[in-house]
Amino acid sequence: MSSYQLSKLADIVGGEVIGDGGVEITGVAGIKTAGRGEITFLAHPKYEAFLSSTEASAIIASYECCDDYHGSVIVTENPYLAFLKVVRLFDVPHLEKYPRGISGDSFISDSAVIGKQSHIGPDTYIGENVTIGERVTVLPFSFIGEGVRIGDDCLIYPNVTIREKTLIGNRVIIHAGAVIGSDGFGYAKNGSIHEKIPQIGMVVLEDEVEIGANSTIDRATTGKTIIRAGSKIDNLVQIAHNVSIGNNSIVAAQSGISGSTELGKNVILAGQSGLVGHISIGDNARVGAQGGVTKSIPPGTSVSGYPAREHSQARKIYACTARLPELLKEFRELKKKVERLENGSDGSSTTEDH
Amino acid sequence: MSSYQLSKLADIVGGEVIGDGGVEITGVAGIKTAGRGEITFLAHPKYEAFLSSTEASAIIASYECCDDYHGSVIVTENPYLAFLKVVRLFDVPHLEKYPRGISGDSFISDSAVIGKQSHIGPDTYIGENVTIGERVTVLPFSFIGEGVRIGDDCLIYPNVTIREKTLIGNRVIIHAGAVIGSDGFGYAKNGSIHEKIPQIGMVVLEDEVEIGANSTIDRATTGKTIIRAGSKIDNLVQIAHNVSIGNNSIVAAQSGISGSTELGKNVILAGQSGLVGHISIGDNARVGAQGGVTKSIPPGTSVSGYPAREHSQARKIYACTARLPELLKEFRELKKKVERLENGSDGSSTTEDH
Amino acid sequence: MSSYQLSKLADIVGGEVIGDGGVEITGVAGIKTAGRGEITFLAHPKYEAFLSSTEASAIIASYECCDDYHGSVIVTENPYLAFLKVVRLFDVPHLEKYPRGISGDSFISDSAVIGKQSHIGPDTYIGENVTIGERVTVLPFSFIGEGVRIGDDCLIYPNVTIREKTLIGNRVIIHAGAVIGSDGFGYAKNGSIHEKIPQIGMVVLEDEVEIGANSTIDRATTGKTIIRAGSKIDNLVQIAHNVSIGNNSIVAAQSGISGSTELGKNVILAGQSGLVGHISIGDNARVGAQGGVTKSIPPGTSVSGYPAREHSQARKIYACTARLPELLKEFRELKKKVERLENGSDGSSTTEDH
Repeated sequence: MSSYQLSKLADIVGGEVIGDGGVEITGVAGIKTAGRGEITFLAHPKYEAFLSSTEASAIIASYECCDDYHGSVIVTENPYLAFLKVVRLFDVPHLEKYPRGISGDSFISDSAVIGKQSHIGPDTYIGENVTIGERVTVLPFSFIGEGVRIGDDCLIYPNVTIREKTLIGNRVIIHAGAVIGSDGFGYAKNGSIHEKIPQIGMVVLEDEVEIGANSTIDRATTGKTIIRAGSKIDNLVQIAHNVSIGNNSIVAAQSGISGSTELGKNVILAGQSGLVGHISIGDNARVGAQGGVTKSIPPGTSVSGYPAREHSQARKIYACTARLPELLKEFRELKKKVERLENGSDGSSTTEDH
Repeated sequence: MSSYQLSKLADIVGGEVIGDGGVEITGVAGIKTAGRGEITFLAHPKYEAFLSSTEASAIIASYECCDDYHGSVIVTENPYLAFLKVVRLFDVPHLEKYPRGISGDSFISDSAVIGKQSHIGPDTYIGENVTIGERVTVLPFSFIGEGVRIGDDCLIYPNVTIREKTLIGNRVIIHAGAVIGSDGFGYAKNGSIHEKIPQIGMVVLEDEVEIGANSTIDRATTGKTIIRAGSKIDNLVQIAHNVSIGNNSIVAAQSGISGSTELGKNVILAGQSGLVGHISIGDNARVGAQGGVTKSIPPGTSVSGYPAREHSQARKIYACTARLPELLKEFRELKKKVERLENGSDGSSTTEDH
Repeated sequence: MSSYQLSKLADIVGGEVIGDGGVEITGVAGIKTAGRGEITFLAHPKYEAFLSSTEASAIIASYECCDDYHGSVIVTENPYLAFLKVVRLFDVPHLEKYPRGISGDSFISDSAVIGKQSHIGPDTYIGENVTIGERVTVLPFSFIGEGVRIGDDCLIYPNVTIREKTLIGNRVIIHAGAVIGSDGFGYAKNGSIHEKIPQIGMVVLEDEVEIGANSTIDRATTGKTIIRAGSKIDNLVQIAHNVSIGNNSIVAAQSGISGSTELGKNVILAGQSGLVGHISIGDNARVGAQGGVTKSIPPGTSVSGYPAREHSQARKIYACTARLPELLKEFRELKKKVERLENGSDGSSTTEDH
């Protein structure tokens, strides 16, 4: 098991030790569960309450949050990034986890080309004319269809389906059960019959894209469905045919993007959000959880709710909605008052004892 | 690579060429990306703007939309259907894509019967007493459980699970990762314990049904979950036990249908919509995206929102909701006015300096 | 095929026969489809209408609901539980369905330990240092990663991925296509780049947990994602890293729970509901279908809607919302009346014919 002196960790993350730099750190853990020898991290302000009780031997923090804590501290400007660097030290990369080489129990077409130092697990299927780069890991029950091209340093988890002609860049990660290149959902109506439109396009996943478990990325009808470099897709996400996603965007779990919709760069879709087809989401736009987006969104805009509206307006509306029952009651009272005023405008009061 | 004269394509789709019928067409593409030698199609009115700039050598269109375009045109009444016919020419059907025959690397029970000209890929599992028709394609890592019956001309993509006793008609397509016949979610409460109710029913998928990638169709508790001929289910859809779906219905991605709910014919559920259990959705009814349906819907009705209401009413309500913050402000003002009127009904003004 | 005398069934379920106890029962079915020789059950009050027409030879019911039915009845306090017991009689448990033993066509690491009477199907992958208990069934195309420990009497359906280090208790059922232990969705921002935080924690599924088809349970960043004994997870559910779910909770299809959120005991999440991260859901709390929970919920509370509010309040709000178009109209009228009153407060009437 790995072990690091705290001062060594501080060097690695570019932080400063407050307290004993000689503490041996043997693991990373959450603030509630960390024990002696472990380093932790303040993941969320809600957890400040645990600072006084945590048994962690050290904590990574920014300057402000360490009043109650009596262990050692690594102080750094971006604690989350520092935490990441420490976690990496305790991680085993796939290059070490899975022995390099091609399993004899795999099914590999004669025309497939596989780069050096790749791990092709047992029970994998590599189709005709597939090209796989160097240091790629393909785990059991993954299917790589005809003519697929995969770059270097990719990691394909088990039970993944990558259909024909898909292009995959470098350092792409595809989690278990994901389906890349399934048919887009397209039919032409012929009377009451839905006639299937063959989906003859493809999917492109650029460098550093990550696709979550059991997500589905449909191939284009013609042309391509494309996810640009650095974008990260969570689990159970649906991306329809001919969608295009710009660089470094984030799509959280169970979100869905309908056909031909285009996302810019640095877009964030929170969980269970949905976008209709044929719209544009500008750079740096954000969609709140369960948001239902029915029209294009300008760059930099945050929207939420259904139908999605600018976020601060949506919040205002939801707050007003909560006061509706009271409003209706007050409205009825006001109406009565006005009626009394109308009746009383002849000069008489409405109260009976007058 | 295939190539067709434009006049030949016009014959095939039953349209009329305006312009040069001798142009050679070598591919199909979207209006934004099509290049020389390619034919395109006006998929959505939004794309009319691209008519003047597209490099496509030909376009399929109805009479109205071709003012700005200077290439050749195939004019036809139903351009979408014509487009479909052209795309089909450039598609390779599974019968040609996968060589006919049974792979030696598959696991096939002795009691299984497989029809002529089927392709049973390597790394497939065909259980006891399975019957598979003619010209069926089963791709790697697909599991066909005991007693399953599959008709002719079906296409089963990789990593599909078809559990025991499922009945599948002809020309059915099941996309990668779909699960057919998983247990319905049923428990009987025994104190605080949830006791599992065995799900001993089955799933029936009739002719021409298509099931999207990673969708899940639960088997019935007793009896059957049934999807009738011609219905199309998109990706990541959940269909619970004992659901019944009528002919030619459409269920878009990430929608969910709860137990024992019945859909009629030609029903359309838009993306991420949800239906509670034990209700009926009439023929030709439609549910909007993210709609949450809590009670039965009469035939021909469109509903949307949560809880789902008749669509035009739901739109009106959402429009009113947007004006709530303003309404509350105006209401407070009106209330003050009425108070002033009440105080002023004795004859005196409400301003204090009188 | 199994057959039971009705009086024998009554003994088994602890009920009393009203009518002919000698009827031979050969199957179980729904009230609408049951035929002669079958026993049925009143699953939902909606189906009382079918009591007079059902062809079932017997029905399981509580005292109140049998006026219209002329067959035999088993009367019992908890008909649903009695139904369960009868269904079990007609079910084939996995221990009998799949022959005990390890298939020669499986891939099993030398260091794996597999208990007695387990069925390890063909085309399965059992990694290094895996421990599997007794009477476990593992079906084709399922992947059990390095160091996974599985207790006794578990059932792993096809195409399941269980990643490294997962701990699974006894009598756990994992349905087809589920992914256990996929990476949590965690990145640290480094400029515009999302740097992946290795997810070095694990997943724990305690005794009697059931995971639905194509659901995804992410491993913890550090520490563990845990689902406690007796909880049942439906299909296509997303459970993020470091989530904790208490005993006997129910998560219906397509629901999603964000990172580090904690559910108590006996919690029920209805279908398509979503929970933000870092909140607590108290014991016995309930979230309605499509509910979007944005903050912690006290024990015993029912919430619904987006943003989720206490259920009775949410219902009131939705009811008021439906009356908004009318309210706006009435409001405009009232405003005019008040204006007239203001103008008329000089003593003159507002109607013109005075």
